[in-house]
Amino acid sequence: MSKVIDFQTDPSRYRHWRVDYDGPVATLTMDVDEDGGLFEGYQLKLNSYDLGVDIELNDIVQRMRFEHPEVRVVVMQSGKDKVFCAGANIRMLGGAAHSHKVNFCKFTNETRNAYEAAEAESGQKYVAAIKGACAGGGYELALACNHLMLVDDATSSVSLPEVPLLAVLPGTGGLTRVTDKRKVRRDLADVFCATEEGVKGKRAVEWRLVDEVVPNSTFDKVVADRAREFAAANPRDAQGITLGPLQKTLSDDGSIAYSLVKVQVDRAARTATITLNGPDADAPADMDALHAEGDQSYMLRLAREFEDAILHLRLNEMECGLWTLRTQGDPARLIAHEALLRDNADHWLANEIRHYWKRTLKRLDVTSRSLVTLVEHGSCFAGVLAELIWAADRSYMMEDEFEGDNRPMATITLTLDNFGAYPMGNDLTRLQTRFLATPDAVDAMQDQIGAPMDAAEAEENGLVTMIMDDIDWEDEIRIILEERASFSPDAMTGMEANLRFAGPETMETRIFGRLTAWQNWIFNRPNAVGENGALQRYGSGIRGEYDMERV
Amino acid sequence: MSKVIDFQTDPSRYRHWRVDYDGPVATLTMDVDEDGGLFEGYQLKLNSYDLGVDIELNDIVQRMRFEHPEVRVVVMQSGKDKVFCAGANIRMLGGAAHSHKVNFCKFTNETRNAYEAAEAESGQKYVAAIKGACAGGGYELALACNHLMLVDDATSSVSLPEVPLLAVLPGTGGLTRVTDKRKVRRDLADVFCATEEGVKGKRAVEWRLVDEVVPNSTFDKVVADRAREFAAANPRDAQGITLGPLQKTLSDDGSIAYSLVKVQVDRAARTATITLNGPDADAPADMDALHAEGDQSYMLRLAREFEDAILHLRLNEMECGLWTLRTQGDPARLIAHEALLRDNADHWLANEIRHYWKRTLKRLDVTSRSLVTLVEHGSCFAGVLAELIWAADRSYMMEDEFEGDNRPMATITLTLDNFGAYPMGNDLTRLQTRFLATPDAVDAMQDQIGAPMDAAEAEENGLVTMIMDDIDWEDEIRIILEERASFSPDAMTGMEANLRFAGPETMETRIFGRLTAWQNWIFNRPNAVGENGALQRYGSGIRGEYDMERV
Repeated sequence: MSKVIDFQTDPSRYRHWRVDYDGPVATLTMDVDEDGGLFEGYQLKLNSYDLGVDIELNDIVQRMRFEHPEVRVVVMQSGKDKVFCAGANIRMLGGAAHSHKVNFCKFTNETRNAYEAAEAESGQKYVAAIKGACAGGGYELALACNHLMLVDDATSSVSLPEVPLLAVLPGTGGLTRVTDKRKVRRDLADVFCATEEGVKGKRAVEWRLVDEVVPNSTFDKVVADRAREFAAANPRDAQGITLGPLQKTLSDDGSIAYSLVKVQVDRAARTATITLNGPDADAPADMDALHAEGDQSYMLRLAREFEDAILHLRLNEMECGLWTLRTQGDPARLIAHEALLRDNADHWLANEIRHYWKRTLKRLDVTSRSLVTLVEHGSCFAGVLAELIWAADRSYMMEDEFEGDNRPMATITLTLDNFGAYPMGNDLTRLQTRFLATPDAVDAMQDQIGAPMDAAEAEENGLVTMIMDDIDWEDEIRIILEERASFSPDAMTGMEANLRFAGPETMETRIFGRLTAWQNWIFNRPNAVGENGALQRYGSGIRGEYDMERV
Repeated sequence: MSKVIDFQTDPSRYRHWRVDYDGPVATLTMDVDEDGGLFEGYQLKLNSYDLGVDIELNDIVQRMRFEHPEVRVVVMQSGKDKVFCAGANIRMLGGAAHSHKVNFCKFTNETRNAYEAAEAESGQKYVAAIKGACAGGGYELALACNHLMLVDDATSSVSLPEVPLLAVLPGTGGLTRVTDKRKVRRDLADVFCATEEGVKGKRAVEWRLVDEVVPNSTFDKVVADRAREFAAANPRDAQGITLGPLQKTLSDDGSIAYSLVKVQVDRAARTATITLNGPDADAPADMDALHAEGDQSYMLRLAREFEDAILHLRLNEMECGLWTLRTQGDPARLIAHEALLRDNADHWLANEIRHYWKRTLKRLDVTSRSLVTLVEHGSCFAGVLAELIWAADRSYMMEDEFEGDNRPMATITLTLDNFGAYPMGNDLTRLQTRFLATPDAVDAMQDQIGAPMDAAEAEENGLVTMIMDDIDWEDEIRIILEERASFSPDAMTGMEANLRFAGPETMETRIFGRLTAWQNWIFNRPNAVGENGALQRYGSGIRGEYDMERV
């Protein structure tokens, strides 16, 4: 699995999904091309999926929000007879490296979270219309929809057969959504998760696994009725914009040049440096002007490029364990761009761009790489870009003048958006998480909105880890980065996953924390992935052989 | 590591700790006997510990509460020069099986939680008086104390060097207590956890790692002052009881007979059946009578025996992946015993016994075994023992008369204590967790307090997973147990850890959930435990060799 994985696609290239638009209702049909796997060695039978299938779904969910804001309800259905979705492809999982499995699950989790949140954030409600078997990752796909409808017949069922069949967990949010979203009684959840054939009919409603069951004869009609009802309850008239292809040049050494984002990969040092540039033009005068700019508008373009860089590096540069985050540009200009969106947060497009930034920053939070942000002279750390300072594991800031450096002195400028627009997965802002011990200090910081802070002020406010002057900067930063890149990547992953999310937990932190960690553990255990483990033996007719010792 | 591990000890047998009592202040001195390891192959240098050291500490914490209720402050200090505690012994960890490591961490976590909670539950505050190096598990030992004092000198420091030195996590609550108890700023926490030599002096206070630093010259005096202050703020006059040795007979086949608890081990079937018997006498007339009964009083004796059975089976019967929980006895009598404690909950001894039950039930919640509770005829599922029904992953109840069975028909009786006395780690009661979707139903159930429910009523109220009559019971239960015992133990562990704790998260669920899961994952990775991994190479002067791929 060494080819470059590209997260960019568009409807003309879809092989696995169809989308039909009918005013406020879109129908999303999963019809996976068996021979369209991202890699060799497996067939995507029975609507099973691999990363390639999910890259298309992610693209659909994103375009639904930007290109089709008129859509209020998305009905997710299967294009196959007798099966809704069989979940992640087992042969793909059996053949994949541990790191690919984990990254695959992370991305699918992010996609699930994105369409699950689309109702609250954008008024787009996803409805699962389940005909046929809906198993494992297939049920997890449905669980992230906010209304689940199941045909009441002999062959349609929902199931999480991972544990009995494969000796792994329903690791794409399944266990968490069963207990915490659907609030299934825990002993029933236990029975459900240990039963290969799953649950069907009325019992699926009684156990809270689906919202309604409908006879086959009336299913299509009831689904259509339900979609119309939901859509009518929440009308919107809006004209979408087109998301064109990204401007992107990938070099052999792994470096990437976008229009606003530059990624410099140093494979020998195992680091990547991501530079986000400030606005190349003044903020549009109003939302009409922004709408006219469409996908070329600064805040949207920057988010798209940054998100693509994050996804690209995660999957394609596995040994780059340390990312350095930089910005360059004019903070005042950035603040104006951000302010236009904030002042028009009830405009659908401003709302979408803001939520998109929230999601993109969350991708960074759950990225299993050490993150160091450098606040240098000439940098553009204001508002949304200042979040990069607190999303990082550490941040360093230049103090005083540097010889031969005539860029404007490094500053950090808070905006109102740092106090609520971009919450983390724990539902706190990055500042609230950072200052968990002193919540009053966060409130007090609102007094400083709009005032550029120099290094001394930033340090006094606890906004950066350390400030350094010209004498120390280069050597110290080099030593810090070298040391960090030398540590065991596994220990880093575990440490960062624990330190980044202090405070309250949500379904999201639980999925990326507890559930993912247990799944990763199991993905390392011979009972699942060994030569005689359940994943390897799947389909052979022979059960896995287990070491029966409990841990 | 195949010898039987015994969790029972007493002060006459301690090899690693000394306790000195001086009225309301006890001093707990850690002075580990290098040659007193529980197993061969390592020396417990520098106050490093293994499970044996922690078994003594657990015993001390427990006796402090029951035998020394007059104690208000426990000062934890080191008996060695220059080192407070070096943490878990690395050679022991390097040589231990994965399952032993995990069980060792679980037990030490439970001990940490017990003395951390002693202040809120019993008014016994633990103070760490740190002189010398306090590293890794040593700092985790201190972190669970509620006041940390550090000598301000060149050699005394606190540190969590696991990540840089050993490529594993500070997995005994360290990361969680740093972020969520001490609320250390996350970038400082990141620096701290990546710095082998740790932090000392004023910086340790500024970073919130300790509560105060004190010059060496006045340290002993300031510690004594602080202990007296804390004690004076919270006086209590009470006369303890003695915790004598348990009545316990262990058979070669692994079965155990206590006075009230019977454990039947079936190694071939990989199951253990734990039967808790109801009271063998009426409840004492009042608290004086209970106090006079001391450790022979029913509720205390049952908890001690049950707890010992849980601990024994966890560490000594690793392949018994399924525990069946049963009770037999007179529910009315049990209710009377429980009621005496509840009605006198402000009496120190009643308070201690109730908290002890809470802790014991929590041990069950985090036990990595499938738990099935059988509510049979003649059983005693009322109040505290009814909690076993909801602590289990599933529960089955006998319905109607069984041929040739003249025991009283199976019933379940709720008491007021089911509504708050025994919260889980998530701070909800087991009923609240079970009925997360319908909190009103839990409130409504209070109307049924004291009324024995038969199988049909219990099913209607959702209190058991399934009820079965004489025709089905034997075969069905056999099939259920056999199937459960055949699944991959790892998948069971992961699934149960996710399904058992719905709802809010606390430090406790986070420690046993997220932190433990990541640590377990790392404990399976070659970077830590492989031939060239950091744990194996520790002490050799050669760094671990790492696969640098990020996962």
